[in-house]
Amino acid sequence: MKEKFEELKRRLGEVADLSCASQLLDWDHQVLMPAGAAGLRAEESATLDRLTHERFTSDEIGRLLEDLRPYEESLDQDSDEASLIRVTRRDWEKARKVPSDLLGEMSHAAATALPVWVEARKNSDFASFLPCLERNVELKRRYIECFEGEPYDILLDDYEEGMKAPEVREVFDELKRELVPLIEKAKANPVDDSFLETKFPVEQQRALNTVILDRFGWDPNYWRLDEIVHPAAYSFGTMDIRITTRYAEDGLESLYSTMHEFGHGLYERQVDPALERSPLCSGASLGLHESQSRMWENLVGRGLPFLRWFYPQLQEAFPQQLGSVDVESFYRAVNKIQPSLIRVDADQVTYNMHVILRFELEQAIIDGSIALEDLPEAWNAKMKEYLGIDVPDDRRGVLQDVHWSGGGLGYFPTYSLGNVISLQIWGKVREAIPDLDDQFERGEFGALREWLGENLHRYGRKFTPMETIERVAGSSLDAGPYLHYLKDKVGELTGAAA
Amino acid sequence: MKEKFEELKRRLGEVADLSCASQLLDWDHQVLMPAGAAGLRAEESATLDRLTHERFTSDEIGRLLEDLRPYEESLDQDSDEASLIRVTRRDWEKARKVPSDLLGEMSHAAATALPVWVEARKNSDFASFLPCLERNVELKRRYIECFEGEPYDILLDDYEEGMKAPEVREVFDELKRELVPLIEKAKANPVDDSFLETKFPVEQQRALNTVILDRFGWDPNYWRLDEIVHPAAYSFGTMDIRITTRYAEDGLESLYSTMHEFGHGLYERQVDPALERSPLCSGASLGLHESQSRMWENLVGRGLPFLRWFYPQLQEAFPQQLGSVDVESFYRAVNKIQPSLIRVDADQVTYNMHVILRFELEQAIIDGSIALEDLPEAWNAKMKEYLGIDVPDDRRGVLQDVHWSGGGLGYFPTYSLGNVISLQIWGKVREAIPDLDDQFERGEFGALREWLGENLHRYGRKFTPMETIERVAGSSLDAGPYLHYLKDKVGELTGAAA
Repeated sequence: MKEKFEELKRRLGEVADLSCASQLLDWDHQVLMPAGAAGLRAEESATLDRLTHERFTSDEIGRLLEDLRPYEESLDQDSDEASLIRVTRRDWEKARKVPSDLLGEMSHAAATALPVWVEARKNSDFASFLPCLERNVELKRRYIECFEGEPYDILLDDYEEGMKAPEVREVFDELKRELVPLIEKAKANPVDDSFLETKFPVEQQRALNTVILDRFGWDPNYWRLDEIVHPAAYSFGTMDIRITTRYAEDGLESLYSTMHEFGHGLYERQVDPALERSPLCSGASLGLHESQSRMWENLVGRGLPFLRWFYPQLQEAFPQQLGSVDVESFYRAVNKIQPSLIRVDADQVTYNMHVILRFELEQAIIDGSIALEDLPEAWNAKMKEYLGIDVPDDRRGVLQDVHWSGGGLGYFPTYSLGNVISLQIWGKVREAIPDLDDQFERGEFGALREWLGENLHRYGRKFTPMETIERVAGSSLDAGPYLHYLKDKVGELTGAAA
Repeated sequence: MKEKFEELKRRLGEVADLSCASQLLDWDHQVLMPAGAAGLRAEESATLDRLTHERFTSDEIGRLLEDLRPYEESLDQDSDEASLIRVTRRDWEKARKVPSDLLGEMSHAAATALPVWVEARKNSDFASFLPCLERNVELKRRYIECFEGEPYDILLDDYEEGMKAPEVREVFDELKRELVPLIEKAKANPVDDSFLETKFPVEQQRALNTVILDRFGWDPNYWRLDEIVHPAAYSFGTMDIRITTRYAEDGLESLYSTMHEFGHGLYERQVDPALERSPLCSGASLGLHESQSRMWENLVGRGLPFLRWFYPQLQEAFPQQLGSVDVESFYRAVNKIQPSLIRVDADQVTYNMHVILRFELEQAIIDGSIALEDLPEAWNAKMKEYLGIDVPDDRRGVLQDVHWSGGGLGYFPTYSLGNVISLQIWGKVREAIPDLDDQFERGEFGALREWLGENLHRYGRKFTPMETIERVAGSSLDAGPYLHYLKDKVGELTGAAA
């Protein structure tokens, strides 16, 4: 048995190595590859992805999983060994249901659609993107046919394993009900952030990003920070974490982008090294991942205790811009709530409405209740309804996000689920570390980092997302703490009790 | 038939993609990976290398090659198609002879030896490296047993396909005979290069490297230049060429290192794009590759015409250091001949003696006529004999090069073969472009670049190294032009006729 288990680990290690090489091709492409090599790189990525899938879905792995059933049952369910067999079997059974050819078609369609989307967005020309979208949706339908169950659940499962659309709908309906009046209230009491409408030279921003990362607890022996247009976090095992940020002179976005990606990176960095080179060596789901990035970006980085430590350094770096702005004013400005057109620029409250809009449209796309050519109109109507905003063109409307060009339907909900989960976890953090605010004011983040490692990160993918949430937060998905946080925040900003 | 040929190309494309991913793992490791990930990266590289070998040596590729014999015979031997079948068959038959396990052991032994060598060199402690060297030599003997033929020829064949030790020996004996007196002559008439013994700030060197690359004809859409400790050139297909250089304030080495690596990179860049993603898509051999790097470094970069264009810009960048040094003095300084301890720092003449010494020792290692523990003594004796130099310690003696730690026996000769070939080609270049010097003086290098592309680079690996040399130089290996060049150079520097 032990021998078969070792053989399973060996094979999974190979798959992990291949998958890692494939992700490196992607990171390299995004960060520094000479642009002229894009066509060739697409071929290489497709080959690596196909081989990774082939090797993972091999009959040999299936036979080992079958043979290892008695061994698995003899073990503690929480052990690394039982978890590896259990999760691998679930992944393997799912992956086996999808023919390699279909995966190849999906990957090819995504690669084809990307430049078309880029061009269509630039020209605000939805019609030119429509054929690509149709192709992606058609392929998604074929993908759905590989499985049993509710169609949208099947898509969601790729990003948030085990989550069902009705559960998401329940949480999102609650958010919608509470947030629409909150947004009205915030709109009626606008915060002054005019002092941010100036220039912040990039060189100082770079230095400040490093100041933050040093205190948050990155170690350049295991981390990199690079600059690209679309920030993201990558990991190649727990010892090679690469985050990216983007710098622009007309704002301080780079700081919050870096804190966000640090949250993602830290999750991967603190997975138990014993799970290295296995399917368990990553965060449990996109929602849990987003709970970590949002936590460092919003609950830490947009909190007053953090700013009491950090803001004096910011003022020192930008004396002309911020010398006469006190920390409370800056705090209100970086927490300002104001409906806007673009999801990625949205504040903490309205952000969720952007996500809910997409979740509703995606369900309509999949159940066929909306024709794809009517998407722009439906988008604009919802923007008006939820945020009171008129969408001037499709570039700033239905074409703004890359996800659908890559066939990524079912992904958006995880962003708001992450917000919800982040506050569930935050409650536990505050209970466990009563002087958290004092620590932040002193620029100390080690206790938070360690608590997250101990209570969440180290598990990796050993448990399902739902099990993981219950372990770390002590309850199932619950929008309560998040809504409470947002109401408090709006109350504070508008100067009234929540 | 056409279908089988396409199937072969498809499979070879997959192998090329895997191999490219493997090389990217290596480039990334050398250039920018966080150091803490080294252990994991070794696993990943080993997996990728093993899978690449497995897929290339598959029975299916063997069957296709067999089935395609009649097709190959029906084609022009110089056609891309016939060449692909012919070269792939040769590679496949060779690769099939080596068990995957032995390759794994060799790769593992190399990975194990590298840090031991680093430490041993630092401490000048040959004894601590000896067990690793013994292991590598033992594995090389097992590797040799996989083939028929003279043992050293088998090693040489990995780097210079088809080349035999007696041919190399003939060329090297001729070099030795002629160079020893030349070196004596140079020693008796030392060149003054004391003005180089000062500081050249790195920032200006960086800018000058770009000036040179721009004129040599790199296009950042297809090239990168990075900084690492051990400069090298990498390519991931013809559209992604990455060269590296190193900067040090105490000299202008970075400029010549960049020109050298540009020569390697240009060879890969100018391979016919029709050969992309196939075993034909690279330079024909290490010797031919080195002929290109040496050509740009020495025949262009250390030539007076190039310096007449470039040196005024160098003076402008370093007015205090070089303002009062005329171009002829600078020319003599960068061509100075003086025996020294370290191969990589050696001048154009003595460099070859370093290589010949290693070639002779490697043959003695393989035929068993020297015991490994006696290597330091034998090394030091030859250094005294060939260059009149006393080796103070093994760090600057037998431990200076990384090659043997990686099992790279048979590699060194290609360095001097490259020197020899570079002059054979140079003769043809000068015939074809009579005003070459005038072009260089104007900073124009396009005609040289295009001539090399048309007459050498585009062939890639279609022909054997020997066939390739005959095609581009019109003759077989011939030390004559190189010796003529060196004698002229020494004559010029010592102020006497050659």
